[in-house]
Amino acid sequence: MKVVLIGSGNVATHLGKALKLAGHTILQVWSRNIQNAHELAELLNAKALSSLELLSDAGDIYIISVSDDAIPSIVAAFPFSDKLIVHTSGTSGIEVLQQGSQQTGVFYPLQTFSKQRPVNFQKIPIAVEGCTAEVEAHLKKLAESISENVVVFDSEKRKALHVAAVFACNFTNHLYTLSKEILEASHLNFELIRPLIEETAKKVQNFYPDEVQTGPAVRNDLSIVNKHLEFLQGKPELQALYKDLSQNIINFYQKP
Amino acid sequence: MKVVLIGSGNVATHLGKALKLAGHTILQVWSRNIQNAHELAELLNAKALSSLELLSDAGDIYIISVSDDAIPSIVAAFPFSDKLIVHTSGTSGIEVLQQGSQQTGVFYPLQTFSKQRPVNFQKIPIAVEGCTAEVEAHLKKLAESISENVVVFDSEKRKALHVAAVFACNFTNHLYTLSKEILEASHLNFELIRPLIEETAKKVQNFYPDEVQTGPAVRNDLSIVNKHLEFLQGKPELQALYKDLSQNIINFYQKP
Repeated sequence: MKVVLIGSGNVATHLGKALKLAGHTILQVWSRNIQNAHELAELLNAKALSSLELLSDAGDIYIISVSDDAIPSIVAAFPFSDKLIVHTSGTSGIEVLQQGSQQTGVFYPLQTFSKQRPVNFQKIPIAVEGCTAEVEAHLKKLAESISENVVVFDSEKRKALHVAAVFACNFTNHLYTLSKEILEASHLNFELIRPLIEETAKKVQNFYPDEVQTGPAVRNDLSIVNKHLEFLQGKPELQALYKDLSQNIINFYQKP
Repeated sequence: MKVVLIGSGNVATHLGKALKLAGHTILQVWSRNIQNAHELAELLNAKALSSLELLSDAGDIYIISVSDDAIPSIVAAFPFSDKLIVHTSGTSGIEVLQQGSQQTGVFYPLQTFSKQRPVNFQKIPIAVEGCTAEVEAHLKKLAESISENVVVFDSEKRKALHVAAVFACNFTNHLYTLSKEILEASHLNFELIRPLIEETAKKVQNFYPDEVQTGPAVRNDLSIVNKHLEFLQGKPELQALYKDLSQNIINFYQKP
């Protein structure tokens, strides 16, 4: 397919690379910032642009991969009225794309993308949605050209998936950061905790997390919980999180 | 070395197996519950007992691996006064072992142990501490017989490590559980989120977590944050955690 990428962030970058690798042609990369557009366009052997008026009409699909807030202004300025346009957001509904007689869809890859790190798209779940069954089938085929793990979800299910991902990935990564802060305050290296982080994630590849919960809170070992709260005395934000998360664990496992 | 294991939980089980594999002899396994003692003793080719009075005096080291609350009663009932006794707790200090003229130490393996899942001890950091330099050297040697990653830490540093581990492992695993709850409430399978969990942990094996934080909060994308809070309206505990963790991320990255 001939693809036009609208956006040049982490998702656009990894998606563009995966699509190119699968044999699709990236015609153009648009970014508000022409320098960013150039950087990604160069990688993808595409043309860079920063004005939506210059979008080629030769695209089979126009992928809008920008922050949710920016989607409406892109849609409003989109120069064609009969194209297939999709966004890559977990949370915005498909209806934000509705304008004129466009064909619309969603193409949401569930992964944490950082430009510095390559990812294997084959294993990444992609949730697609189309305004018609035909569009949906089309998007499914495109998704299957880069991933073995394609699902068709409506906007409500996709939102649940995104919220779950915020807990399992974004919040989790922030807990790693807080852990690093605690270590550094005692002049300890983050390196020490890396094997534990890896094992914690590996464990739930085969088990469910509630089958393998460990630590003082699940044992209701309040003597340790209190010693840890005391240890965090000088750090009220960390102390509050420690307390709330421990209480949540205690409540969860004491449910009848 | 001739080892006596006092305790039969997750840590005692994995530690006992690793020590046996490294060529040490496990003489006895004590547990308050004789059935548990038998199960582990059988694995380790050791004798099972549930009375501390029956402890053999032939041990080179007595490893107390029980909940922190239970350590003092074990120490009080320990029948010898000139042995090397250690505990495996991250949080209890070395001083809880002091009684008579024992040699005391700590042997803290930093990992999340579940009986169902084997672990590779070679990569697990072990933090040791001894009441004297001689004991410390002794424990270091024992630790190095099962792990490549041995450090000597005082009780205060070890506590920092344990608190950091609670954030990076116990709380993280609970976030996986909450994520599973959210998915299941929308009839989605936890399987969907497993690749994301794995990638999130792998990423920080080479980067620092604050270099690769993603998601709506770090972008200060309040439109998504609010949509997610609305989505969680019927689940006040989840909503409160979502709000607190997002606010913590926003504050963290807005620090000057």
